[in-house]
Amino acid sequence: MNLYEKRLSNIYDWMAREGIALVMFEDTEGRRDKTIRWLTGQPGDALLFLSLERKCMLVPWDINLAKVYAAADIILSYGQFDRIPRNAIRKAAERFKIPQGSKIEIPPVTSYPVFLNYVGDLTEFDIICRERSAVSQAQKFRAVKDEEEIKIYRKAAGITNILTELLEKNVRSGKIKTEMDAALFIETEARRRGCEGTGFETLAAGPERSWSIHAFPACTGAAFAGQGLSILDFGLRLAGYTTDVTLTFARDPDAPQEKLLGLTERAYKLALGMAQNGASARNIAAAVDGHFAKSKKAMPHALGHGIGLEEHEDPPLRNREDNTWILEPGMVFTLEPGLYDPVCGGCRLENDILMTETGPEVLTNAGIIRL
Amino acid sequence: MNLYEKRLSNIYDWMAREGIALVMFEDTEGRRDKTIRWLTGQPGDALLFLSLERKCMLVPWDINLAKVYAAADIILSYGQFDRIPRNAIRKAAERFKIPQGSKIEIPPVTSYPVFLNYVGDLTEFDIICRERSAVSQAQKFRAVKDEEEIKIYRKAAGITNILTELLEKNVRSGKIKTEMDAALFIETEARRRGCEGTGFETLAAGPERSWSIHAFPACTGAAFAGQGLSILDFGLRLAGYTTDVTLTFARDPDAPQEKLLGLTERAYKLALGMAQNGASARNIAAAVDGHFAKSKKAMPHALGHGIGLEEHEDPPLRNREDNTWILEPGMVFTLEPGLYDPVCGGCRLENDILMTETGPEVLTNAGIIRL
Repeated sequence: MNLYEKRLSNIYDWMAREGIALVMFEDTEGRRDKTIRWLTGQPGDALLFLSLERKCMLVPWDINLAKVYAAADIILSYGQFDRIPRNAIRKAAERFKIPQGSKIEIPPVTSYPVFLNYVGDLTEFDIICRERSAVSQAQKFRAVKDEEEIKIYRKAAGITNILTELLEKNVRSGKIKTEMDAALFIETEARRRGCEGTGFETLAAGPERSWSIHAFPACTGAAFAGQGLSILDFGLRLAGYTTDVTLTFARDPDAPQEKLLGLTERAYKLALGMAQNGASARNIAAAVDGHFAKSKKAMPHALGHGIGLEEHEDPPLRNREDNTWILEPGMVFTLEPGLYDPVCGGCRLENDILMTETGPEVLTNAGIIRL
Repeated sequence: MNLYEKRLSNIYDWMAREGIALVMFEDTEGRRDKTIRWLTGQPGDALLFLSLERKCMLVPWDINLAKVYAAADIILSYGQFDRIPRNAIRKAAERFKIPQGSKIEIPPVTSYPVFLNYVGDLTEFDIICRERSAVSQAQKFRAVKDEEEIKIYRKAAGITNILTELLEKNVRSGKIKTEMDAALFIETEARRRGCEGTGFETLAAGPERSWSIHAFPACTGAAFAGQGLSILDFGLRLAGYTTDVTLTFARDPDAPQEKLLGLTERAYKLALGMAQNGASARNIAAAVDGHFAKSKKAMPHALGHGIGLEEHEDPPLRNREDNTWILEPGMVFTLEPGLYDPVCGGCRLENDILMTETGPEVLTNAGIIRL
């Protein structure tokens, strides 16, 4: 069984247990779902149907792209269905001989009005749309990376680490002077070293702008790494998978800035110490929130998140009552404590962690860089 | 009345006509809606509530960012609601004294499972989720740009045109040799000239890869503009608004490649001639599809789309029966006929059109560049 067959097999097994005859996955503008890439190799913009008979049908927007990248039992261009999902559902039901009255599951992100349309249009089937779905099941599988994915992550982290070292060197030497210099350096070097590009828009915020969680605009021509705190948040995408690290450059920090840095570094150590197999993701995030609260500070975002084909995946490391995730071997996630102050600026320290059988392995080497 | 007040006022009027007491807009990962930026200036990641009493409450993820960029009657951090929308809805209902049993409208993209949760949690109100909504109404307003937006578009198009000229010059001189050279040149020059960045990931595909509609990966280190057809699709984002143009570089095209180029150029002229005030967007797209069909070719995507704060807005120029859009003054949209062949490669010609009282004005100067 190849990689895709193995992944599909797990979903087919789930379908059999649930008695679902046909499942639809959708990856389209506004409703992105990288599960289709994970299951077939198709880079994006497609529908994917899985049948209880363990066969799949891919309906790509770009048939030429699918012919090069995708593996599926049947591949039919979306164009032949006038790019209307219900037409593709009908064809899949016909090709897979789905009996009338069978359960057909559509993605849980399907909007309520569109759900009503499906139900109204496809009266011969039982249309199901629910949180606990093949989509959420695939996301659970995807949270635990397989050997092939871990291999990619080691390589992607290696390139990320080279860039981190070069960034520090070039900031120190004065070769990188502006936010834009930093962002373009990353963009160039990532692709030069075999990456598909960056995993998300690089956020480069000099001392005047580091007070926001995510700099807006993402980068400008403003000076970078001058007196105070500068944030550089970037990720490299290799074979679909993105890393995600944040460096904080601190130049001659004053006492309040030192306080933010110290609290953030201690938060990171606290989190890393707690990130063990079997640990509750929520508890780790809660401990960091508590640590900041003791100094009357608050982190305005989650402690971390899984990474993979999407920049934010499971498990969430978030202090919210609905978070029941437990860390386990194969998970790859960020730890990224940060504090932001309208006057002092902000700092964040973010690394990517691979959970192994023996505990957390820090894949990346980001940190607070004192200039 | 300032710009935001004027825009809000139109939505308030609509609410009064519809008898909706409270409307929620949401701009979050997976459910982006630039209407919040259009109504308040907040760059992203927020909830926005509008009340029948013509007051609004913004709930931003990043309160520091909102303080700098956003205008709203009330601004409260999302953190204080544990980042749970229903908590924010309750607070808005309280602050605006919404009577029990009133209609509260949530975004039409709300998923069916989440809609059920809202209904179950907020039993004291009548929760409404429908296609014909404040969100869709705002999108209709946004399809017709106001004077301020047209001013931005003229400026953004001017910068785009300078870049197009420089790109041609640098390709001819050999300064731009690879796909990456082209993409990084655009990234650098856009920001240097005051843009927030690019409006979307630049697609640069040399002759070996131009057969796909959207190149994957978006760009690589491969040679650009060698023998055959190369596609460069990019947009610049200025003050939130993106342009969107595609250049095709043709070097020594063979007969089948010449045929694709000729058909595409004629399709563009046909579309531009038909793009008049009062024209049906669908009819124009259908005419282009018919033009290609006469030569036994098919365009695997729509003819064009509105542009604005989002890279794809209304009106769609698509040949589908549900498309009832009529062109009118103030609309800004692309015309982008293209053909793609696994052997010959692909070509696309895309410009941005402003509809004026007297007809279409072509804002950008992209075209097929013969080397």
